[in-house]
Amino acid sequence: MILVLDPAITPSQREALDSFLAGSGATVRENRGGRGDLVVLTSNPGGVTAEEFQARSGVLKAVSAGQEFVHAAREFHPENTVIRVGGAEIGGKELLLAAGPCAVESEAQMEACARAVSAAGGRILRGGSFKPRTSPYSFQGLGAEGLRIHREVADRHGLLMMSEVLDREDLALVAGVADILQVGSRNMQNFPLLKALGRQSKPVLLKRGLASTREEFLLAAEYILSEGNGQVILCERGIRSFDPSLRNSLDLASVVLLKEMTHLPVLVDPSHATGRHRLVLPMARAAAVCGADGLLLEVHPEPAKALSDGPQAILPADLMALSEDLRVLAPVVGRTFGAPA
Amino acid sequence: MILVLDPAITPSQREALDSFLAGSGATVRENRGGRGDLVVLTSNPGGVTAEEFQARSGVLKAVSAGQEFVHAAREFHPENTVIRVGGAEIGGKELLLAAGPCAVESEAQMEACARAVSAAGGRILRGGSFKPRTSPYSFQGLGAEGLRIHREVADRHGLLMMSEVLDREDLALVAGVADILQVGSRNMQNFPLLKALGRQSKPVLLKRGLASTREEFLLAAEYILSEGNGQVILCERGIRSFDPSLRNSLDLASVVLLKEMTHLPVLVDPSHATGRHRLVLPMARAAAVCGADGLLLEVHPEPAKALSDGPQAILPADLMALSEDLRVLAPVVGRTFGAPA
Amino acid sequence: MILVLDPAITPSQREALDSFLAGSGATVRENRGGRGDLVVLTSNPGGVTAEEFQARSGVLKAVSAGQEFVHAAREFHPENTVIRVGGAEIGGKELLLAAGPCAVESEAQMEACARAVSAAGGRILRGGSFKPRTSPYSFQGLGAEGLRIHREVADRHGLLMMSEVLDREDLALVAGVADILQVGSRNMQNFPLLKALGRQSKPVLLKRGLASTREEFLLAAEYILSEGNGQVILCERGIRSFDPSLRNSLDLASVVLLKEMTHLPVLVDPSHATGRHRLVLPMARAAAVCGADGLLLEVHPEPAKALSDGPQAILPADLMALSEDLRVLAPVVGRTFGAPA
Amino acid sequence: MILVLDPAITPSQREALDSFLAGSGATVRENRGGRGDLVVLTSNPGGVTAEEFQARSGVLKAVSAGQEFVHAAREFHPENTVIRVGGAEIGGKELLLAAGPCAVESEAQMEACARAVSAAGGRILRGGSFKPRTSPYSFQGLGAEGLRIHREVADRHGLLMMSEVLDREDLALVAGVADILQVGSRNMQNFPLLKALGRQSKPVLLKRGLASTREEFLLAAEYILSEGNGQVILCERGIRSFDPSLRNSLDLASVVLLKEMTHLPVLVDPSHATGRHRLVLPMARAAAVCGADGLLLEVHPEPAKALSDGPQAILPADLMALSEDLRVLAPVVGRTFGAPA
Repeated sequence: MILVLDPAITPSQREALDSFLAGSGATVRENRGGRGDLVVLTSNPGGVTAEEFQARSGVLKAVSAGQEFVHAAREFHPENTVIRVGGAEIGGKELLLAAGPCAVESEAQMEACARAVSAAGGRILRGGSFKPRTSPYSFQGLGAEGLRIHREVADRHGLLMMSEVLDREDLALVAGVADILQVGSRNMQNFPLLKALGRQSKPVLLKRGLASTREEFLLAAEYILSEGNGQVILCERGIRSFDPSLRNSLDLASVVLLKEMTHLPVLVDPSHATGRHRLVLPMARAAAVCGADGLLLEVHPEPAKALSDGPQAILPADLMALSEDLRVLAPVVGRTFGAPA
Repeated sequence: MILVLDPAITPSQREALDSFLAGSGATVRENRGGRGDLVVLTSNPGGVTAEEFQARSGVLKAVSAGQEFVHAAREFHPENTVIRVGGAEIGGKELLLAAGPCAVESEAQMEACARAVSAAGGRILRGGSFKPRTSPYSFQGLGAEGLRIHREVADRHGLLMMSEVLDREDLALVAGVADILQVGSRNMQNFPLLKALGRQSKPVLLKRGLASTREEFLLAAEYILSEGNGQVILCERGIRSFDPSLRNSLDLASVVLLKEMTHLPVLVDPSHATGRHRLVLPMARAAAVCGADGLLLEVHPEPAKALSDGPQAILPADLMALSEDLRVLAPVVGRTFGAPA
Repeated sequence: MILVLDPAITPSQREALDSFLAGSGATVRENRGGRGDLVVLTSNPGGVTAEEFQARSGVLKAVSAGQEFVHAAREFHPENTVIRVGGAEIGGKELLLAAGPCAVESEAQMEACARAVSAAGGRILRGGSFKPRTSPYSFQGLGAEGLRIHREVADRHGLLMMSEVLDREDLALVAGVADILQVGSRNMQNFPLLKALGRQSKPVLLKRGLASTREEFLLAAEYILSEGNGQVILCERGIRSFDPSLRNSLDLASVVLLKEMTHLPVLVDPSHATGRHRLVLPMARAAAVCGADGLLLEVHPEPAKALSDGPQAILPADLMALSEDLRVLAPVVGRTFGAPA
Repeated sequence: MILVLDPAITPSQREALDSFLAGSGATVRENRGGRGDLVVLTSNPGGVTAEEFQARSGVLKAVSAGQEFVHAAREFHPENTVIRVGGAEIGGKELLLAAGPCAVESEAQMEACARAVSAAGGRILRGGSFKPRTSPYSFQGLGAEGLRIHREVADRHGLLMMSEVLDREDLALVAGVADILQVGSRNMQNFPLLKALGRQSKPVLLKRGLASTREEFLLAAEYILSEGNGQVILCERGIRSFDPSLRNSLDLASVVLLKEMTHLPVLVDPSHATGRHRLVLPMARAAAVCGADGLLLEVHPEPAKALSDGPQAILPADLMALSEDLRVLAPVVGRTFGAPA
């Protein structure tokens, strides 16, 4: 049981609640987290019901197990969370474009990507230096050297740097360099990592697991939020499906549902969701008009030579073409795209 | 094994092929179907390989088991199929709008829907008189009386009439009245029905099964095409997923893939795909910009009183708002929407 | 809303209920179906709640929409349904073995299969004469001639004959010859067919759809039961999964759940569920010890020459080996297998 | 490309291979791993084909991307891997029973469980001290104190201790105490953890991810094997499905397939796979007769009071009843169960 406290709770109401809890024998844990105050009951031997807790002054709502994404829930935080980093606003009126290669490979490659991202009106240069690869024999990333290249190129083009963190041990290294930390879909339920991300202050982009429900997704975000970091960006990237001709299915309706369930920004990654470059632009356009706060794309100057995920990367020219489309599409959903002249 | 004949095969090439087949001991069946000539080998005791068959003059390609949607395949029919019915073109340059209630309930209800469809620039009035319902205790449709109402109202508004056929026994009745015959997702592999639909001449809208692969979908279309009816319209309507908070997932990337695999028109039904009216407009916009040839929507003047599927129906005013959006979105993908003044 | 009447309702209680219903303005439909009396409310303008209905004498329970498999529910029919046909009992103490080829091909093939089934202690000879095939170019069955062969061979070996019905038009033909009628997974929601099966008297084996929930499965059974035929046998045959290396997953836990939810017999078909002969015996053994009422297997004297589904057929010798295992396994779950000497 | 070297490669053959590789310009990385020698080509600029590599003396096979579980593959290691730890053999003739609570809660609880496991013929006492929980507000385990209790109780009853590791940082702590290290399904693709597990010497039980294909599962095992630890035990624990009435489906056919694909032992966890105690025994029996090397069960003296996953725990008496069944079932698949008197 979690008690969501009224932000306007008075000291005397709080005192009364505490003594009621003590009397009931409940074991409690305070949680101040990223979005307000909670009282978490880790045991409730008196069997006090949710209704009884909600009846007490200063308690906004009592939430029972299984719907515990209380920091993430729009129900308790009706206004959108807007994450401000560098000059960019994520979750605000502007449709956000983040792009870059799957993996940082070289300065020349990053330079070509950054030029494309910048020209297309993008704000964030993505690229992994620590890569989660299905096979141990695949390219695992350039590590620290990749981070250095990534930072220099991003700065040169006035772009934000987003990079993936694979586990707690790499966190300090990546968080020391990048502006936004990415958690991949395979790590969506790496709980020690999520907790550690909640105890630092950089924004976190959290990708939905391949077969995770929306509730599990928001509970994963809650791990970060409940530790005190309120800057979480969600990202839909395709869910596992049964048709072998395209193993993932980009669940765009989920964007609309997530925006109802939570106040956090929601991006869409059509590159990983489809795995084929020919599908990326149509799905990027679709995401733009169904309510996503932004797009996360893979672009590569020479996809055929990419060290990872080449088949899903689009060319700089494709990114430019998409950019033109986004200028028309964004206003249809009440958004802007691209810097004013 | 199926031999796809070259449309330009000469009589003497054909004669030579026939005598080669006779010599090999193969049992063959001709198929003229909806999109050209095939020779279907029902046995091949000589074990002649696909390569050997393809080497013969007049044979475009030899196709082996499992990829046998040869009438449906774009590979053999590169140009788009455009279905002309009444004044409408399905699969052409215009983005098609089809809408109406889930079930025909009364003249007043159909009249209100038809007004809304017509005002929004729609061409087709949908509505079922024979309803496939999960429970035997749910409303099963008005039957013949529903068809009569549907026809009159569609004619009054200059709209085409699309209605569902549940099995072979109802076919003559529905085909005698409707302009386009719909096959629901639960019937996608009702093979006797598909064959019967292939032997009549009305266009058929075929919905993808809830857990059918694209290959199975195209093989279902092939049942209709191979009997001689070339007018098949495909419809994506959501596939089954694992998240109980929304059991279907609208697979929009599938639209792009289907348009690559086949020359047939592809519509999207965001109403059944999501089952919730709040998701319909965002998903309709998304479908419009990812390459769909049109939209199939549920609209109802009073969704709360609908006898079936009320929660997913949008209001006439929503349809009108969508219509405004489609005018902006269609040109982004090189299409038109709405009749010129 | 459905009212499940108490089997012991008195005439005066019934009279009182009818006049209460009339007063409430509800439209009602009687249903005597295969397992007792129901009152189905097709409209309930007075908004009488389930609680209010349940409070009335003679009403066992009021069931609201979505859980309407009242004839199928164990809740209202706690004892197991045992279907007696020929000398066999389906759903009784004996573990039932049904086997045969996917498709009837010839007298010699059926004769070889029947010998194997009989020797292994099987009761039912399966085999399709009308085949639902994914591709229109695959073998579609021998039709009436197949039924004739099947009947003769079954009789010669004292076996029951089970054959598939594809749609309403074939029903009279197949029901005139076979002892048990099979409905395939693709037809699980062919509602006109299910209703027609409910209006005849032969037992029906209903296979679960590839992506159907258990609730949908039981509602499909309800279509047959609600028309008056109480002899429905359920069959698990694998559900669609995401791993391309084996597209179906045999959901054996579902057998246990179904036996809790319903009083109907539940068989398992490990041949279609796995599609590979090497998996059939292990999965048949597994099914036997998890509570299934019987097994449905594909056997073929020469799988390599089978006209359909050869890769999943086991040999007569495999069936014999399984039979030996079943003699040891059946008693572990309180069952018998095989005729006494 | 990976070259699997012939175990009998001669020094001169190896020298010739090395100089051929140098001449081709390929970048190579040696891998001695847990099961033999490999040459991993991280670049192959000469475009030498798999056929060309396989033609060279001393090269058993050249394996291309996507099927790279070469250490795990039975193809290259036909004999079963048997893991000997304490007196137990995992993957040998004996059917292995591992059981215990989901989470270590107290000495009394562990003592009751250990008595039950030992009495039932089990070899391994499972129990988590670091728990991966979907919600941050759920019980997260006793940590180091739990490990201490677990070790003492296991020793007192002559049982092996198996405990879960959540990430690299906890590894040394857990590996310093436990006999077998468990990796949960959510961590199946935590690659830094897998690599670290490959560099220590304790056996590792790796659970299949909820939506992981068998190929991904074996590639995850390969991460451990390729670092030098050959003692990997696989565990099927249910895959995600679409039916909300039971969200996981226990994929028992996968056990048979995995045993064909790999030489590693395969256990089944029917407790997590079903989540309901009433399904555990039927599924445990099913697993025992379909080829699994052993069972991993949750048992708890008072399931209703369990701090995690209570609904799926069986009682000590159930474990005892299962033990009796296993004595009958194991011989059917050529195995033994339970110590000789």
